[in-house]
Amino acid sequence: MTKIPFRFTQQASCQETKARAGLWSTPHGIVETPRFMPVGTVGTVKGLTSVQIREAGAQMILANTYHLHLQPGEKIIEKAGGLHRFMDWSGPILTDSGGFQVFSLSNLRQIREEGVTFKSPRDGRLISLTPERSIEIQNLLGADVIMAFDECPPSQSDWQTVHMSTQRTYRWLLRCIEAHQRTEDQALFGIVQGGIYLDLRKESAQSLVSLDLPGYAIGGVSVGEAPELIHQIVEFTTPFLPAHKPRYLMGVGTYREMAKAVASGIDLFDCVIPTRLGRHGSALVQGQRWNLKNACYREDFTSLDDSCPCYTCQNTSRAYLSHLIRSKEMLGYILLSLHNVTELLNFTKKMRESIIKGTFVQDFGHWF
Amino acid sequence: MTKIPFRFTQQASCQETKARAGLWSTPHGIVETPRFMPVGTVGTVKGLTSVQIREAGAQMILANTYHLHLQPGEKIIEKAGGLHRFMDWSGPILTDSGGFQVFSLSNLRQIREEGVTFKSPRDGRLISLTPERSIEIQNLLGADVIMAFDECPPSQSDWQTVHMSTQRTYRWLLRCIEAHQRTEDQALFGIVQGGIYLDLRKESAQSLVSLDLPGYAIGGVSVGEAPELIHQIVEFTTPFLPAHKPRYLMGVGTYREMAKAVASGIDLFDCVIPTRLGRHGSALVQGQRWNLKNACYREDFTSLDDSCPCYTCQNTSRAYLSHLIRSKEMLGYILLSLHNVTELLNFTKKMRESIIKGTFVQDFGHWF
Repeated sequence: MTKIPFRFTQQASCQETKARAGLWSTPHGIVETPRFMPVGTVGTVKGLTSVQIREAGAQMILANTYHLHLQPGEKIIEKAGGLHRFMDWSGPILTDSGGFQVFSLSNLRQIREEGVTFKSPRDGRLISLTPERSIEIQNLLGADVIMAFDECPPSQSDWQTVHMSTQRTYRWLLRCIEAHQRTEDQALFGIVQGGIYLDLRKESAQSLVSLDLPGYAIGGVSVGEAPELIHQIVEFTTPFLPAHKPRYLMGVGTYREMAKAVASGIDLFDCVIPTRLGRHGSALVQGQRWNLKNACYREDFTSLDDSCPCYTCQNTSRAYLSHLIRSKEMLGYILLSLHNVTELLNFTKKMRESIIKGTFVQDFGHWF
Repeated sequence: MTKIPFRFTQQASCQETKARAGLWSTPHGIVETPRFMPVGTVGTVKGLTSVQIREAGAQMILANTYHLHLQPGEKIIEKAGGLHRFMDWSGPILTDSGGFQVFSLSNLRQIREEGVTFKSPRDGRLISLTPERSIEIQNLLGADVIMAFDECPPSQSDWQTVHMSTQRTYRWLLRCIEAHQRTEDQALFGIVQGGIYLDLRKESAQSLVSLDLPGYAIGGVSVGEAPELIHQIVEFTTPFLPAHKPRYLMGVGTYREMAKAVASGIDLFDCVIPTRLGRHGSALVQGQRWNLKNACYREDFTSLDDSCPCYTCQNTSRAYLSHLIRSKEMLGYILLSLHNVTELLNFTKKMRESIIKGTFVQDFGHWF
């Protein structure tokens, strides 16, 4: 099923861990892995222009089927010439299937073998999302990578519940593959589920891999799981995924978890954390989280991080950022979001460079 | 009192109106007049970075003594090396004195000959602002132009009230001049008051001009006055202000009022309207106001204004902006603010070009 525009080449690998550096070509450009992908849920990485996102070092970004279906609707985006043109992002895009959002955000959902029915949080109308419908919407949005529509059971579910859910997710995946109309320019990724049960993770991974998809994601690990559990699942699951396909760990974007996951062989990450923290007045600085409202920043006229190339660090001080956040000024949220996105992108870029130089464990070993 | 760094040169004037084009040098650069000045109340033009403001065509921007005194406080800005460095704006800045804000925004104010006492809206503590204190704060902030601390009577006040207020404003101006410690690099502007009473406007203007200040503003016209009244006051007052000094009409930033004021000989404008409209989802397009939530924009894939050079118009569609505003996304407010600021800057730039070319009435006469 892998088509020519999607080609993953492993450039270098770590001798002591399973970390690897890769080049992944997509219809809208190359992604150098490992790489963090900023999240643009409704077609905007919150608060940032496309030029700012590009300058932050982003190569590929995310958007969300669930949100874009509700507003503005996939038909409008199709008429605009697709999501890339609509949101003015010329690089690769990945759309999540909406599965996770239906299960985590919507009320009054009914889950059947056919799919899920839920009440729109915007206007209360009943919406039905099935594997076929999710893929149809994603085909209209036109992202480079589209995700299978999966069932996401609550994180504390028992083995039997997760087992049934994982099997349904597999049956839904077969329907997604069948429904997919743009295999020549959109790569459909499968999502390994299985919750905290390693036997189910293995079963899920092996059944997905048998379908020879152009890429694989590990899902269901970011939702309220302990970091140790995330690492255990990722470390256990990754070896079942083929080396010549990109591996994407969904929803994870903290320093330690990304470093550990890269050491396990993960290539791609996404997380709303850099922009969400920015909107809450916090900065990610060299592995730490700073609340800019703290008194210590009021008269600190140094930049957030001298070594960071972002606009915020090159042009503003901690004192100014603290003032903006205290004043609830939009620019404060913008500047912090811009820095935080740059910071996580740089973190993954530096891991990549270290893997290529052969110094990954030396440079990042303190994280795992 | 005019010092060397402040030099206003009239380059061209209109034959049929009193419009003029000027070059005004300040310690932080030249302002080509007529020119709109974006407002950065608390040290940020809401939602825009300094680079974006510069690219929008801004030469001089405003900030506010009242707001900056409350947060972060002038001492912190002084320690940062002054307002220019604090807010990362290398061009000229003008600070308003805080007078207007004390009278319009604060509660529980007590007005005495000495000055005004009011309750801080942030923490309830009593703050006293006097002419001396306002100038002291503005000296610490370090803007290129500082404004006299004036009394602003309610717009419906009777002649007697406005007369007494205008006379107090004059006495306060004398105290401002006396208190001003940085005459070599900060120009103190006087503000013509007098409400709707032309005889008081004349008296105020003449008394100010006798002090040979480096520039003059017309105040108290934007607050709830009818456009015809604004024009009448501006047309009547401007001839009393010397031709070799810049003239600044405070708080006015609508197309028609700016065009009429330029025809009367005004050089500078400021207004929060472009960013405020942006935050409310509206765009200023060639003299009109568009609400991007209107259904007509949902599937309109053209740019706001093809002829506008701003980032928003060059990279996004009305449909995308409409989607962002409907989704209450920060980027929508940012992109509209950026366009609106650019639009008003361009409007004044074009008036300037027409004055120089000798086509001002031909090009802008439909506005007045």
